[in-house]
Order: sequence, then structure tokens, then C-alpha cells
Amino acid sequence: MTLREEALALHRRSRGKIATAVKVPLRTQRDLILAYTPGVAEVSREIARNKSSVFDYTWKGNSVAIVTDGSRVLGLGNLGPEAALPVMEGKAALFKAFGDVDALPLCLSTQDAGKIVEVVKAISPGFGGINLEDIETPKVLEIKQRLIQELEIPVFHDDGDGTAVVTLAGLINALKVVGKSFEEARFTIAGAGSAGYEITRILHRVGARRMVVVDSRGIIHRGRKEGMNRFKEELAKITNPENITGQLEDALRGADVFIGVSAVPGLLRGEMIKNMAEDPIIFALTNPEPEILPEEALRAGARVVATGSSQFPNQANNLLVFPGFFRGLLDSRARSVTEEMKIAAAEAIAGMVGGKPSPQRILPRAVDKKIARRVAAAVAKAAKG
Amino acid sequence: MTLREEALALHRRSRGKIATAVKVPLRTQRDLILAYTPGVAEVSREIARNKSSVFDYTWKGNSVAIVTDGSRVLGLGNLGPEAALPVMEGKAALFKAFGDVDALPLCLSTQDAGKIVEVVKAISPGFGGINLEDIETPKVLEIKQRLIQELEIPVFHDDGDGTAVVTLAGLINALKVVGKSFEEARFTIAGAGSAGYEITRILHRVGARRMVVVDSRGIIHRGRKEGMNRFKEELAKITNPENITGQLEDALRGADVFIGVSAVPGLLRGEMIKNMAEDPIIFALTNPEPEILPEEALRAGARVVATGSSQFPNQANNLLVFPGFFRGLLDSRARSVTEEMKIAAAEAIAGMVGGKPSPQRILPRAVDKKIARRVAAAVAKAAKG
Repeated sequence: MTLREEALALHRRSRGKIATAVKVPLRTQRDLILAYTPGVAEVSREIARNKSSVFDYTWKGNSVAIVTDGSRVLGLGNLGPEAALPVMEGKAALFKAFGDVDALPLCLSTQDAGKIVEVVKAISPGFGGINLEDIETPKVLEIKQRLIQELEIPVFHDDGDGTAVVTLAGLINALKVVGKSFEEARFTIAGAGSAGYEITRILHRVGARRMVVVDSRGIIHRGRKEGMNRFKEELAKITNPENITGQLEDALRGADVFIGVSAVPGLLRGEMIKNMAEDPIIFALTNPEPEILPEEALRAGARVVATGSSQFPNQANNLLVFPGFFRGLLDSRARSVTEEMKIAAAEAIAGMVGGKPSPQRILPRAVDKKIARRVAAAVAKAAKG
Repeated sequence: MTLREEALALHRRSRGKIATAVKVPLRTQRDLILAYTPGVAEVSREIARNKSSVFDYTWKGNSVAIVTDGSRVLGLGNLGPEAALPVMEGKAALFKAFGDVDALPLCLSTQDAGKIVEVVKAISPGFGGINLEDIETPKVLEIKQRLIQELEIPVFHDDGDGTAVVTLAGLINALKVVGKSFEEARFTIAGAGSAGYEITRILHRVGARRMVVVDSRGIIHRGRKEGMNRFKEELAKITNPENITGQLEDALRGADVFIGVSAVPGLLRGEMIKNMAEDPIIFALTNPEPEILPEEALRAGARVVATGSSQFPNQANNLLVFPGFFRGLLDSRARSVTEEMKIAAAEAIAGMVGGKPSPQRILPRAVDKKIARRVAAAVAKAAKG
């Protein structure tokens, strides 16, 4: 069977990947009286009196809404909410299996940013957190900003925040391998969507100053007019200190690190790596086909290569992040996601590589369920300040 | 421990009553590849090509959104969405335990009918059905009507539809006990909210013509101006053939059946029963305290008494209806709820009373899990026509 056949057969057999489960006995009349009417009325009255007790008496403190509009399903484009559902169910299953988080897919029939904000606000009372997923950029960044302002529960955007955390985790170890620092290293980030935006911001936060971001129109610089939005304007302010212009090859000349979140397979050519600084680090994170295949990058002189794929060593997989991150948010009843939490999570993940990091081993394996517990502890600690 | 203490302790211990569960293996790298990327991309592509296959490959075909705005939580009033959550979780748990339906609570922060419709439409792609719950009347009837017009999945309103089905089931057997027919019997329905509206409609559908509906302003009649809305206008058209006016006692004189869904405990007095026809049937369904206590009704001459409470014989409990009803809707991929399905469900429930119905036994016990299977089969059969 091909991967396609096997995946379709699995999904058809199980009719999806998640279900609900009951946590209380419901066999006797007495069970029903306690879990439903009239007993539950006492619980409702108690919550009406003291709203925050909803965290004690319901699943709110453990539940997360995974919200998508299907406008950017994986790398497949705008397939709509139905086609997004198996992806969201997969995410929900991983949330449960790795973080014991009760996550629910909400696939919306509207792709309007304002309406999405209204819907998420409307459904928020029953959830302890919101995870935005597979919504196109820059719309998703606007939605996230508005939700952060208006909600009292944390809002996470895995495609942006999660990717930034796992990228930072990998870079912590990759820079150790080559003996360079965030402050001194030169970074070229290809892609200014959600992932590029959040990666650049978190790198700035940990001290990186010599960064250049490149999108499909070339290097982002102060004064550029074409293809800008307010998030790219923000990037223009914190990157490109010499305000250079040009294309990817110009940005890469002498760079120490390439980070590809461009959604353009094959974007990076071997000769560009040859013009980078000594011991180049290549994070070619576009899925399913990276900006450059690892063997080609290594042949061109790359010292450390990471991709988004499980086929190669050093998979930068968001599964390392989101289950534990939300576990930590929920355990600490955090009301928002902070950059400190994200950095703490990245450090925890980087620390899970057994022994000294090596070019072939800068990230732990995603199937290791211990990781989520460590990430959760780091996030909860950061939440408490 | 009091009921209150025991209910609070149960909810606190389990932190709510429902959780998510994972239906596929997620241990090995291969498991992840099939259930998540890149395997799931094939499933998304397939659904994008053929939208209706979402029922085959996801949980949509088994999932129901339980939607409330907390504007009428049980009989407790407008307590808001947080206080409604334990009730909705209880409902979700019963859906799973009795019907194997994956139901999710969505407690909304808006109480505006138009916004509720927008939110439900927005989240509908991921669900196989909608159950409206604990939303005040007549708003909920308007919301339901609009959703039925705009959605391609069935919309059920348990407080209305569910109550109508279980009431009809009980009446089928109660009328057998006293040897009367729907066509000939005179019905007085106290309460013109969702339950009163749906009960009156379903009784009309099964042939009842001699019905009078009474609300807090008195008998509903053609020409009444005060306290009307378009749903009560509809009732005025199909009831009260002699167009009488007056109060509850006037409506009850000579009546065969009293159906109380008034939300007024103690509304029915013994002397009113004395003025009813021979062998009066009393359904005092208001919870937790009925319109009249069974012992008082029997003392006044009632032949058959049903209430909403598990403390007395003949509990008209919606749990007899909703898990099996949705099981049948989902199994048949029904796109709407029809009156035929509701009548078929009521007949199935009435038929579950072992042997001949008696005054003490007109309804089966709610904890019997066989009922949902029978109701499901009846609904699915009705769906197929």
C-alpha cells in the first residue's frame, strides 16, 4: 500500500481520530442525579456565584479549541474547513496523546478575519486556551493580536509560535556545535509569513541582531514599498541593520545561518551555501519538500542541517512544542502566552538532546513523550515569573 | 453529605465530566506519519475533491455541538455560559454513555439571536448535528428556524423537541390506560414556551384537535393581543377550536389531560383536577418541583401522573430521547429533523414499557441503555422514509 492508500484506509476504518470520553460513572439513578439534574444545578449555582470556579468544576481548565478556517491547510492551500478537519483531528489526537490536553477541532465556514474573531470570542467561555491553525498570513497575525487583546485565556498560533520555539531550540544546539553566539551570528530568514515573523521576533528577543529577512520580493528593508504589511514593517525595524537590498543570494553572502520557512521547495541552491560563512547552519523547514535536501546542503559545505521532515536527522517538528506548551499554560492557568514562556520551552527542548549536541543531533525525537512534561514544567515556571 | 456537597465533590474531583480520547495508535514514527503529516495531507486532498467524504474520514459523522448561551440554565434562569458548562458537559457525557455520540459543549458569550445563528453556522462544518440547549424562549425557536433553513445538518432543540417526544411517548401509554384517543381527548397545556410549543405541535400532528394552551396571561385564543409572539399565534391557529378565553381553571374544566410545562411549581391545585373529565391524566413536568405533587394529584382523582423527577414513578426524562435520537440521525446521515422521526421515536419509547402499560408504568426507566438503540433504529427508519 502507498502512503496515500494506507492513510485513507486508517481514517476510513476509524472514522476520524478522536472521540469524547466520560470521566464519571453513569450507571445508576444516583449517578445521573449527581452528574446531571438535579445535582448539576448546584454546580451551576456555584459557578454563577464565583465565575473562576469554572476551572475547578468543569473541563475548561483542560480544554483547548483548535480553530481553523481552512485557508491554508498544511502546504496545500485554501481547501476549506471540511478538508482541514482531519488535520485538526490529528492535532487534537496529538494534544491528548502527548500532553493529556482535551483539544477540539473547530473548522469554520467563514474566512473573514473579523468574523473569525467574533466566533472565537463567542465560544471562548468553555475553553482554557485557543490554538489557531492553518489560517493564511497575515490574516492570522491580525486575528491573533485582536484575540490576545480581547480574551482572558491564552492564544497560541502553532504555525507561528510553535515553529519559532522549535526553531530556537534547534538553533541553540546548532550554534553550540559550531561555537557561535546568537549575538554574533548572521541569520538569513527566507519567508516573512507567520513562521518567519515569529522566528525573527524570538531571535531578536534572545539577542540576535544581525538578521536579514527575505520574502518573494527580495530583502525586507526600511523604505521598501512593495508587498509590505504592518508585520513586515515591524520586521524591517528589528532586522537588516545595514539596510541592504537585493535577493536571497545577497542576504546569504557571509551569513552563518539560513532559516527557510518560505514554502518554496528547492529555493536554496548549493552555490549559495558556498558563499556563506564558515560552518554554515541550514534550517530548511518547508514541508513536505524542504528548501534544499540535506545531502545537497552537506555536499555544499553545510555543517548542520535541519528540516521539517521525519525522513532526515534533526526534524524540527512542532509536536515537540504544542502539547507540552499548552499543558504548561493550563497547569499554571496562564492568561496569555509570553515570549519568556516560548524561550523557556525552547531551552527545555534543546536540553532534551542526550549528551553533547552533534551535527546529526540538535533536536530530540518527537515520539519521546517525556519532552512534553519538561516543556510543560518550563512554561509553567515561566508563567509564574 | 448533602446532594449539593456530593455533586460539588464529584465535579471537583474529576474536573468536569468529559474528555477527548484518541482512536488511532500514536506511538511510532509511522503512526505519526499516517495520522498526521504527511499522511493526513492525502485525506485532506481527498475531502477537498469530494466534500461529502468528510463523513467517511473524520469524526463529523458522529459529532454533535451542544450549543447554549446560558440564558436559561435548567430552571435557574440567566446564569451565563460558564455556569451552563457543567450542564452541557453532563449532556455530552450522557450522549456518549447512552448513544455513543461524540457531543461537545459550546457555551457562548453572546446572547444575541443573530450572533448565535452566525456562530453556529460558522462552526457547523465540523459537526454532524446541532443540539440547542438552555436558551430562552422564544429566542431559541427563532434561532432554530433560521438554522434549519441555513444548515445541511440536523438541528434539534432538546428542551422543545426532546420534551415533546417523551411527552408523546408517555401520553400514548397513558391514553391506553384510560381507553381514550388523541382525537377525542381534551388536552390542556400549561406553558407556551419551547416545550409547550413543540408538545402542542406534535399532538396536533398525531390527531389531537381539542387542545387549549394556557400561559401566564391566560388561555391563548385567536384575537388575543397581550403577550403574543409568532409562535403563540401559530398555536392559536391549531388549538382552542371554540376559541374560549379565561384562565387555567376554565381550560381544565372537562379536560382529559393536563400537561404542565409552565415553570411554575404548585400551579395545579387539587380542586382543578376534580373539575376535569373522568380518569384525568396529569403530566406535571416542571423541574425540579412539579405543578402538583403526585400524591396530591392522585388524592384529587388523577388516574395517571407523570413528572420530570426521578423521585416518582413515570419520569418523563429527555434522556429517553436525545442519545438515541441523534444516534439515529447520525446513522442515517439525516439532513434535518422531521415530525415523523419524532413520532417514531415516541412510539419506540412507549413500546419499551414491558407488558401492558399501567398507571404506575407508562414510561421505561431512563437508565436502560437498550432504549437508545430502539429509538435510533426508529429514527433512522423514519429518515429513510
